[in-house]
Amino acid sequence: MFVLGIDPGLSTTGYGLVEGSHPPRGHRAGVIRTDTDLSTAERLVVLHRGLTEVIADCDPDVMAVETVFTNRNLQTAISVSRASGVALLAAAEAGIPVYEYVPTAIKSAITGDGSANKRQVQQMVARLLRLDSAPQPVDASDALAIALCHLRAAPLEALR
Amino acid sequence: MFVLGIDPGLSTTGYGLVEGSHPPRGHRAGVIRTDTDLSTAERLVVLHRGLTEVIADCDPDVMAVETVFTNRNLQTAISVSRASGVALLAAAEAGIPVYEYVPTAIKSAITGDGSANKRQVQQMVARLLRLDSAPQPVDASDALAIALCHLRAAPLEALR
Repeated sequence: MFVLGIDPGLSTTGYGLVEGSHPPRGHRAGVIRTDTDLSTAERLVVLHRGLTEVIADCDPDVMAVETVFTNRNLQTAISVSRASGVALLAAAEAGIPVYEYVPTAIKSAITGDGSANKRQVQQMVARLLRLDSAPQPVDASDALAIALCHLRAAPLEALR
Repeated sequence: MFVLGIDPGLSTTGYGLVEGSHPPRGHRAGVIRTDTDLSTAERLVVLHRGLTEVIADCDPDVMAVETVFTNRNLQTAISVSRASGVALLAAAEAGIPVYEYVPTAIKSAITGDGSANKRQVQQMVARLLRLDSAPQPVDASDALAIALCHLRAAPLEALR
């Protein structure tokens, strides 16, 4: 099974493709950036096109997306939700099922600690994928973490 | 100038086309509904297709969208932001500029009172568009209110 992890954001959306082999194997990771000079609507178009291309290139079996789960900053929640909405749209247009995970679930699945910091998550991503260091930028390795989270959660889903 | 007002929502998105004549004239109003049996991603596809059709049929000069502006319910904010993100995407794909208005600005532009209730807004929509009563469902007349708000705000934008 190939899982495409997505760390959505209006400025930078990370993506990472992981194969559910033993051990899991990272195949691609990168980011889609949108120009701050563009309007929000235009940035969503860039994001939608970019994600549609990534999905076509990666041909994943499933997409795993990080869900916003904070009341701290409403503007950020709106912006991330719009980006994740476009990611969900691109997945459904390609006929790919989508699973969503909150940040604590991702951290917990990767490090065993739902309150792990960014650096701990990156270290575990590198270790799980047998890499010398986690891919950069951080949005790309976060996307790999989301894909790895799905691979660890999926067997539980199957048992339900 | 033809303004397409959009009241975004994952379950029901209202739309209303208003011509900026004197007096303003309502041309079309309706809703796009998405089935609760569908996944969020699939509902966003239905919404995106519906809005793309509405934009093609209405051929507006500009789109005006209501923006979420509340911390009260994060799940609602996420859901509405995803719907509005898809609306912005559909507008930009069609090359139509988008303006966003918060609820208090819309109420204030229509009734003179930013804390007006739903019924007062509907009554004023009917009066401004010379209708016996506001179109139903309420999401459709709210969308007309958003378009009317843009027509009242646009001359101020032009003065800047």
